[in-house]
Amino acid sequence: MAEPLFRRLALLGVGLIGSSVARIARAQGDLAAEVVANAHTEATLARVRELGLADRTELDPARAVEGADCVMLAAPVGAYTALAEAIAPHLAPGCILTDVGSTKQSVIRDVTPFLPEGVPFVPAHPLAGTEFSGPDSGFVELFRGRWCLLTPPAGTDPAAVEKISEFWRRCGSMISVLDPHHHDMVLAIVSHLPHLIAFTICGTADDLQDESRQQVLDFAASGFRDFTRIAASDPVMWRDIFLNNREALLEMLARFTEDVQTMAGAVRRGDSAYIEDRILRGRKIRRSLIERKQA
Amino acid sequence: MAEPLFRRLALLGVGLIGSSVARIARAQGDLAAEVVANAHTEATLARVRELGLADRTELDPARAVEGADCVMLAAPVGAYTALAEAIAPHLAPGCILTDVGSTKQSVIRDVTPFLPEGVPFVPAHPLAGTEFSGPDSGFVELFRGRWCLLTPPAGTDPAAVEKISEFWRRCGSMISVLDPHHHDMVLAIVSHLPHLIAFTICGTADDLQDESRQQVLDFAASGFRDFTRIAASDPVMWRDIFLNNREALLEMLARFTEDVQTMAGAVRRGDSAYIEDRILRGRKIRRSLIERKQA
Repeated sequence: MAEPLFRRLALLGVGLIGSSVARIARAQGDLAAEVVANAHTEATLARVRELGLADRTELDPARAVEGADCVMLAAPVGAYTALAEAIAPHLAPGCILTDVGSTKQSVIRDVTPFLPEGVPFVPAHPLAGTEFSGPDSGFVELFRGRWCLLTPPAGTDPAAVEKISEFWRRCGSMISVLDPHHHDMVLAIVSHLPHLIAFTICGTADDLQDESRQQVLDFAASGFRDFTRIAASDPVMWRDIFLNNREALLEMLARFTEDVQTMAGAVRRGDSAYIEDRILRGRKIRRSLIERKQA
Repeated sequence: MAEPLFRRLALLGVGLIGSSVARIARAQGDLAAEVVANAHTEATLARVRELGLADRTELDPARAVEGADCVMLAAPVGAYTALAEAIAPHLAPGCILTDVGSTKQSVIRDVTPFLPEGVPFVPAHPLAGTEFSGPDSGFVELFRGRWCLLTPPAGTDPAAVEKISEFWRRCGSMISVLDPHHHDMVLAIVSHLPHLIAFTICGTADDLQDESRQQVLDFAASGFRDFTRIAASDPVMWRDIFLNNREALLEMLARFTEDVQTMAGAVRRGDSAYIEDRILRGRKIRRSLIERKQA
């Protein structure tokens, strides 16, 4: 087996992503010799201990990062500023700071001001998720065959980028490096906007008069079930994503709203050709996804 | 085994629903002693014969319904007017006409004018579907444990309604009778609008500049994958549903658009409380769905 990449990995957050990383570290032994877990509440850490996910748990993030040569932010992105401020004075020289957040410009904006000299920050985003959250939800296969996107700002130590790349390769991921702005635009359309829509349409249904709402629940056809599966994800995580990818999300929402109004106009005036064309484009994208084996 | 409900069942359309009904009739023997299949093209009927789904195939719908004591419209709802006009003079007295369309007011509007004396029409809508279509896509378990909604207009022969109810019970469905207008409103929010949105957002992504589009496909996260699964359904069927449930669909789209604009406003001004509330409502609906075992 390969040597562990890191001596001590500090995980700040042990939800779906963090607890999956912890499980892989346990199972493989080639990621980190020691895992220290930090979470927002003692209850979560108690569960981490019950599950045996870490060598040590620390409620204080400053203590969690002491002596770590890799610190991974795996909390909702809205917590990054406070975390970065709390841990910065305690980061060991040569330690690599990384994260797993779904928005990358905001993360760079929030973390960079606190970075001590000699601590590289390698922002990362493993594209993997389920509708579940918390330390119980993780599993070792989560990242296998999935993309992990790295968005290092210009000037980031290449050795640190390579080490984080290798970390995710050992988790089973494929690596892609891209510009943080571009990351945020692409994620806005493939993930953030679909979730915003899904949360919203659940509310629209919930606002129906009582009798209809009952029947909405009774008769929920496949379309709505898929929407509500998306909509069952962690509220704080998604609130933070929306707020921290605000510009790209609103830009994509504006484009989508224009398109949906055009579609509504086509339905109103009975424009069969336009409607069919839009449906066929959806199928074309779907086919491309299947060919890429991401489906 | 129970006696067959019908001597001769004529299926006008052998897509996902029609070919599933045909397979159940074959497998169980208690639905119909004989099945006659009609489709829009000879190629489809050739496939029906290869699959052994029917006792007889007829390209002419008028010939398909001759001597049938149950005729089931299972084509896209946009084809109903032409089908009803073609078959009306050939329906045997006492034959029950039924359908499986996803819109019910339009179906009653299109079929009723052609109904001969003594032929009851029992509109039905089995709430079951996959993203696949055509005679190969059907399977005998499709309707098991799923709702079948009946929307008989006032004055419909109760014996005919009961016979169609029994037909779907034997397919494994649970029966609910409701008003056609109410059906169309509920389906607009649980199924038709989600599909319209899914088709549209695929187009929005497809309109991105080439480089981003490539990455949309490469990095499609779980949210977008769920959307495109919805969006892979049959184009003609969905086009017809949108056009034939126009009013309810546009009404629900208007409500959704208001809600999505309110959500956009909350994101723009950073209203965490509103955003979290909306996400939590989505989870609440999701939980209700799971409790109803429809999830």
